[in-house]
Amino acid sequence: MAKSTPEMNNLEMSEGNKPLLNAVIRHIHDNVDPITEEFYRLGEGRADRWSYAPGQLELLEEAKQKARDAGLWNFFLPNAETGEGLSNLDYAYIAAELGKSPLAPETLNCSAPDTGNMEVLERVGTQAQKDKWLKPLLAGEIRSAFAMTEPDVASSDAKNISTSAVLENGEWVINGEKYYISGAGDPRCKIMIVMVKTSPDAETFRQQSQILVPIDTPGVEILGPMHVFGHDDAPHGHMHIKFTNVRVPEENILWGEGRGFEISQVRLGPGRIHHCMRSIGQAEKALDLLMDRALNREAFGKRIVDLGKNMETISRARIEIEAMRLMVLKAAKAMDVLGNKEARIWVSMIKAMVPEKVCDIIDQSMQVHGATGLSQWSPLSSMYTGTRTLRFADGPDEVHHHVVARAEVAEFQESNERQLAAHGKAQGKVFSGP
Amino acid sequence: MAKSTPEMNNLEMSEGNKPLLNAVIRHIHDNVDPITEEFYRLGEGRADRWSYAPGQLELLEEAKQKARDAGLWNFFLPNAETGEGLSNLDYAYIAAELGKSPLAPETLNCSAPDTGNMEVLERVGTQAQKDKWLKPLLAGEIRSAFAMTEPDVASSDAKNISTSAVLENGEWVINGEKYYISGAGDPRCKIMIVMVKTSPDAETFRQQSQILVPIDTPGVEILGPMHVFGHDDAPHGHMHIKFTNVRVPEENILWGEGRGFEISQVRLGPGRIHHCMRSIGQAEKALDLLMDRALNREAFGKRIVDLGKNMETISRARIEIEAMRLMVLKAAKAMDVLGNKEARIWVSMIKAMVPEKVCDIIDQSMQVHGATGLSQWSPLSSMYTGTRTLRFADGPDEVHHHVVARAEVAEFQESNERQLAAHGKAQGKVFSGP
Amino acid sequence: MAKSTPEMNNLEMSEGNKPLLNAVIRHIHDNVDPITEEFYRLGEGRADRWSYAPGQLELLEEAKQKARDAGLWNFFLPNAETGEGLSNLDYAYIAAELGKSPLAPETLNCSAPDTGNMEVLERVGTQAQKDKWLKPLLAGEIRSAFAMTEPDVASSDAKNISTSAVLENGEWVINGEKYYISGAGDPRCKIMIVMVKTSPDAETFRQQSQILVPIDTPGVEILGPMHVFGHDDAPHGHMHIKFTNVRVPEENILWGEGRGFEISQVRLGPGRIHHCMRSIGQAEKALDLLMDRALNREAFGKRIVDLGKNMETISRARIEIEAMRLMVLKAAKAMDVLGNKEARIWVSMIKAMVPEKVCDIIDQSMQVHGATGLSQWSPLSSMYTGTRTLRFADGPDEVHHHVVARAEVAEFQESNERQLAAHGKAQGKVFSGP
Amino acid sequence: MAKSTPEMNNLEMSEGNKPLLNAVIRHIHDNVDPITEEFYRLGEGRADRWSYAPGQLELLEEAKQKARDAGLWNFFLPNAETGEGLSNLDYAYIAAELGKSPLAPETLNCSAPDTGNMEVLERVGTQAQKDKWLKPLLAGEIRSAFAMTEPDVASSDAKNISTSAVLENGEWVINGEKYYISGAGDPRCKIMIVMVKTSPDAETFRQQSQILVPIDTPGVEILGPMHVFGHDDAPHGHMHIKFTNVRVPEENILWGEGRGFEISQVRLGPGRIHHCMRSIGQAEKALDLLMDRALNREAFGKRIVDLGKNMETISRARIEIEAMRLMVLKAAKAMDVLGNKEARIWVSMIKAMVPEKVCDIIDQSMQVHGATGLSQWSPLSSMYTGTRTLRFADGPDEVHHHVVARAEVAEFQESNERQLAAHGKAQGKVFSGP
Repeated sequence: MAKSTPEMNNLEMSEGNKPLLNAVIRHIHDNVDPITEEFYRLGEGRADRWSYAPGQLELLEEAKQKARDAGLWNFFLPNAETGEGLSNLDYAYIAAELGKSPLAPETLNCSAPDTGNMEVLERVGTQAQKDKWLKPLLAGEIRSAFAMTEPDVASSDAKNISTSAVLENGEWVINGEKYYISGAGDPRCKIMIVMVKTSPDAETFRQQSQILVPIDTPGVEILGPMHVFGHDDAPHGHMHIKFTNVRVPEENILWGEGRGFEISQVRLGPGRIHHCMRSIGQAEKALDLLMDRALNREAFGKRIVDLGKNMETISRARIEIEAMRLMVLKAAKAMDVLGNKEARIWVSMIKAMVPEKVCDIIDQSMQVHGATGLSQWSPLSSMYTGTRTLRFADGPDEVHHHVVARAEVAEFQESNERQLAAHGKAQGKVFSGP
Repeated sequence: MAKSTPEMNNLEMSEGNKPLLNAVIRHIHDNVDPITEEFYRLGEGRADRWSYAPGQLELLEEAKQKARDAGLWNFFLPNAETGEGLSNLDYAYIAAELGKSPLAPETLNCSAPDTGNMEVLERVGTQAQKDKWLKPLLAGEIRSAFAMTEPDVASSDAKNISTSAVLENGEWVINGEKYYISGAGDPRCKIMIVMVKTSPDAETFRQQSQILVPIDTPGVEILGPMHVFGHDDAPHGHMHIKFTNVRVPEENILWGEGRGFEISQVRLGPGRIHHCMRSIGQAEKALDLLMDRALNREAFGKRIVDLGKNMETISRARIEIEAMRLMVLKAAKAMDVLGNKEARIWVSMIKAMVPEKVCDIIDQSMQVHGATGLSQWSPLSSMYTGTRTLRFADGPDEVHHHVVARAEVAEFQESNERQLAAHGKAQGKVFSGP
Repeated sequence: MAKSTPEMNNLEMSEGNKPLLNAVIRHIHDNVDPITEEFYRLGEGRADRWSYAPGQLELLEEAKQKARDAGLWNFFLPNAETGEGLSNLDYAYIAAELGKSPLAPETLNCSAPDTGNMEVLERVGTQAQKDKWLKPLLAGEIRSAFAMTEPDVASSDAKNISTSAVLENGEWVINGEKYYISGAGDPRCKIMIVMVKTSPDAETFRQQSQILVPIDTPGVEILGPMHVFGHDDAPHGHMHIKFTNVRVPEENILWGEGRGFEISQVRLGPGRIHHCMRSIGQAEKALDLLMDRALNREAFGKRIVDLGKNMETISRARIEIEAMRLMVLKAAKAMDVLGNKEARIWVSMIKAMVPEKVCDIIDQSMQVHGATGLSQWSPLSSMYTGTRTLRFADGPDEVHHHVVARAEVAEFQESNERQLAAHGKAQGKVFSGP
Repeated sequence: MAKSTPEMNNLEMSEGNKPLLNAVIRHIHDNVDPITEEFYRLGEGRADRWSYAPGQLELLEEAKQKARDAGLWNFFLPNAETGEGLSNLDYAYIAAELGKSPLAPETLNCSAPDTGNMEVLERVGTQAQKDKWLKPLLAGEIRSAFAMTEPDVASSDAKNISTSAVLENGEWVINGEKYYISGAGDPRCKIMIVMVKTSPDAETFRQQSQILVPIDTPGVEILGPMHVFGHDDAPHGHMHIKFTNVRVPEENILWGEGRGFEISQVRLGPGRIHHCMRSIGQAEKALDLLMDRALNREAFGKRIVDLGKNMETISRARIEIEAMRLMVLKAAKAMDVLGNKEARIWVSMIKAMVPEKVCDIIDQSMQVHGATGLSQWSPLSSMYTGTRTLRFADGPDEVHHHVVARAEVAEFQESNERQLAAHGKAQGKVFSGP
């Protein structure tokens, strides 16, 4: 089993951060919920799918200002000087709330992928890089993207990355193709962190680097949006981008050549915890919608909730939701106690566990809704497609299961064989007892 | 168990219709496949989503003419005079081929919901109804819709239908709301068969009637398309329609007042067989795509097919596909041998079995594809959403499971209790033996 | 969702009881593990299946004495005077250890069903009842049984209990039949608590009472053992008992007539937590055995662990085990924080969740073992049958799922509808947004 | 997909053999059912578990004589001279009936493993081998065993077989260990066919041979019975046997050195079809028992059948049973049409499909029964354990899934890639259409 310590079972939020959690809840209720419908309604009328309609950004900026005023701005980021900040466990509780509102994260400047990008810049950026890119990101003036996945290789195996960067006359010359670059469609997106292969002859995990590439650099061509179940998710977008002889200054490299994989360990940070907590929020919502429908419709002379297996469906959903929530909190706590590196088995556990189960719960809710559940009258189908993509994002389920099993096997080989022997192992022909 | 006779296990296509099957295959290969990409490409440029672009219908009409010339037109319909026609079993084999091409059915004039509508008109229509609506449908000049499902009631229980039709001065006056009226978005759609409640005081299954309503009748208001996972399926469309004091002549009723449920038994005809066979075709395609991807990508130094559970996924998909195919053929044969009424248990079996399993197979194929599997570069996500809707269309899985179980229980109570007693039943305290 | 408070997420064992846990672990290692094989080996040679072989009980008594000497005796029971005792959470950690050894619980005087019976006597017994039965039970001199389930009614619905007790001349006259009375086969079993119907005309939940019946009372006839997958589990046994005009003094009733259901709330106590924790221990062992086999066998040129889906099987087992463990700890904590009554939803959650999942994990381990996994060379098949029975014991899974769902629905109706409305509910036709 | 021809979908029993089927049904009803309870009741009193009680074999012999008189004896075996015999398809229908009675196969001389052994002797035995062993087997005078599986290697990979046979002075000297040798416990078992490694230096599939070994040969030591879920299945038994310098004449080899694998293809014959059909019979019985219980018990004021998901459980069981039955019939037909070799993909499909699904159905029936379902009052637990072993017998599920998938991949690579290309393959970036 993955390493666990007694204190890792204390999953209670710290007293000190409960006021922050309450402030976030209040902010969402007071400042975000009231503008949500209007924000999307305005967006429906926009001329260019890849822009915002007049008034949309104003609404957002107003809510952002309220968050700044309330001291809720950038709380996700550790204090630059003291290193102090929210524990992952406490952040998980907040993420659960953020997950209930599509606009809330941005109003608090903690949207993906900006959070990961800011964290990386904060930890490994040079002062010049920080001044140029971290400052406006922290101010909420620009947005950013992270270009990792490539269409032509199995990106579940990060060693396959083939986009190349070659140093020529003090410039990195980048060639290759990336896709599913989330957020790169937003007109406010100005900077990308691009994973490239710089050192094909180095040892396997030292071949990659991460480089800052302004999105308006010549040679960066946005070929179009990748669709998810037919949706382009404009104006955010999951873009397909071609890099043709894209040139950026040598100093745009992050942390040095060959450190691309090391940086990935840093950015893993709260991202997956956040994704999983948000998914659990979706599961809660799907279950609420299921009950709302099942209690308020009748067929064959009964409420739908009283037909067939629906009560058991509700119970199984509730049980899985509670189990997932505890597991995500434990993974967050593991990061706090063990550090990102040792905690990564716990993180893989929740990444492999949560999106798959949440997809099932949303699907069951759709089934109880009938055709309406698939339609625009219900958020369920877009909740489903959004969660379905998480079974690939940051590595497909299969890769995470492999990580978990490999750790399990290694740990078994080290220690359990002894313990098994001690407790009476089922070794051929000598077993007896009940 | 549902009734079965020895001959119902002969699932071989009749010799006599094998040439027809081959002609259909040839037609699709020669006349439909070559125009398919152009048809959709042309459509992308159309000004109005709810129309066809110049050239699209011309392509279709050309293929339709070739089908007429080859004697393949309207083969789905029994001979009006002799009653002779394709058996459901033979039609099932042809449906499997039709399911492989999105355009093929229309080129042979056997698209849903026109086939069901034509069948109903053929069997229960008056001569006047046939002259006015069946003739142009058989000629492929117009298209039609079937308006059954309502947004405000659980339509899985057909008794809930609340759209009313009241006879006033020789006219039916219709009021109510229907949704998911497939095909009603097509500019060529001219006529709807509408399920209404005409006799609220009659016994439960005699309250409903079906009435012909031209789509351009005043008071018919198309409120908009219902989306499926965010797609409007234009220009076919699954429309949301409001009926406000819609008036049609008394003689537009089909077969007489209170016979709405009886007519439904007729139209059940090949529709569900076709849907299920088409789904199996989708599963075959999903499995082919899975293997194509898994054999041609590598990760972690192996072909994807050699990683994890992928080989077992392939085997399980193949086994389920073969089992589903035999079950659909058997249900078709049951209709031939037992008649629609007694065969309906078999039809419910495949309706509850096939779409659910096919969704799983498509989902597994998506998972093997990674993010590309959800994108516009792969047909998988639209195959998934299309098949997912079949778990509601013509009744949700749960209703079909209930039909199957109720028949099982009834049959058990009639006969198996005796048999069980004869064979040594596990009745309290007397069981002995292995 | 079931009620949760912030502190209910603190699942860490109390500092104060960590020494007790360590003492228990040491006791099992030093005093129980060394005698286990001999205990069962001796038993194999006994003349009468329903007795102990010479030497068996001596071994046990020796270990019991060591537990007494170490102050580990009866720790499960709250202090009779102060009410102080182990929290359910702390007990859960200890139960996990007890579950690893078949003999450990008895050496510490905390075997089922004695623990429940002692708890009930302690809380609701009269002084005379305590003197006569609780004292020797606490001393580990006798054992006991709990007679609840009946063969002729669906005992999942406790209201069905039909064994009657009628007061005649200061004596309860009991007639009826009970089965699966665990432990009633043990020659040391002297007393039973029997659930009876005393007041058929009272309101539904006041009709039942619990009565103390010495097992040697005339009219108590042990018809034989009930088998579980063909095993009689002698000499413990799950006995089938007939009560024919069994007469016991009026004062043998517990807590008063009509309080049978109330007492059940008391005895629920740590029993289910213990069962579930023990099951998780079985799952851990099954997973260890799986890995041991899969790492040490080869087929087709590979270790079995590297074939097919076996790595994913390991990962999924690990994930589910960790999730179950957290859920059981949370249910235990819920009992501590909310009290047995309010915590019962959490208890139903784990009772419905754990045995089913553990059966699956054991089954997968058997599958990896091949035929050996089903044989006497492996403990897996008896682990499976033991865990399979837990899906019925204390109520079948279905009843617990119903309890969970009913609470979920009730809680939703009270509060979530408001919340849903506030957050933007998917109510027909007004939904918009992502 | 596995090869299929149009005629392979004709799964109707031949007219010519319907009288045989009816005669078998009549025989079971008239001659076997009436003696079944007495046979097992007599057995309960026997002194030696590994013998028959007085009267048991007499009952059997009487029924065997009736079968001989009715011309039903040895019908499973093709005519030695003409080669004519039952098709596999027709035999499958008969096997379904045989599966309903534990004694029926033996009364017709078609018990496993005798049928396979007789078939092998018939096809590849020398005249001397036939005279000595086939004759008394055909006469029903002796019984036989097949010794294949070994405890120390993963026998799912037959190449691992390590029991050796070395030719010395005209005798094979056999050393090694076999287990799960079914039927070797029967006192009437006189001869074993033993799979051995004779030619370790030959190419992989020519190293094994099969040799006839009388069970009373010196050096054959029956170490004891292997248990299945704790049962020894006496007196039939699944024996653990050690071979120490066992010497048999050179001419006891079957078909020649190195042909062990070839012979296995022969004996595959009707065995797996029979197993699968028998399992389906068990599933039917489990479903009948489920309904019997669910219709005749009440809880919470309803019949159990009307609670929760039970109706859906019934429907799903019925659907899977019908699908499995058609698949087994198709596999049998495949053997008739394609021959054993090409049909083996179909046989692997049913072997991987049927026992797993039947275990699930039996398990669900147990769950509906409550604790009684696990007890000796119901046949369900022994049905479960019997079917569970089939997931290993003749190769574990996993091996059969691998066979199916490998064939699927090979066939795809040969042909489907072309077809996919023709139909418009989902190749990066060019897909369009619905």
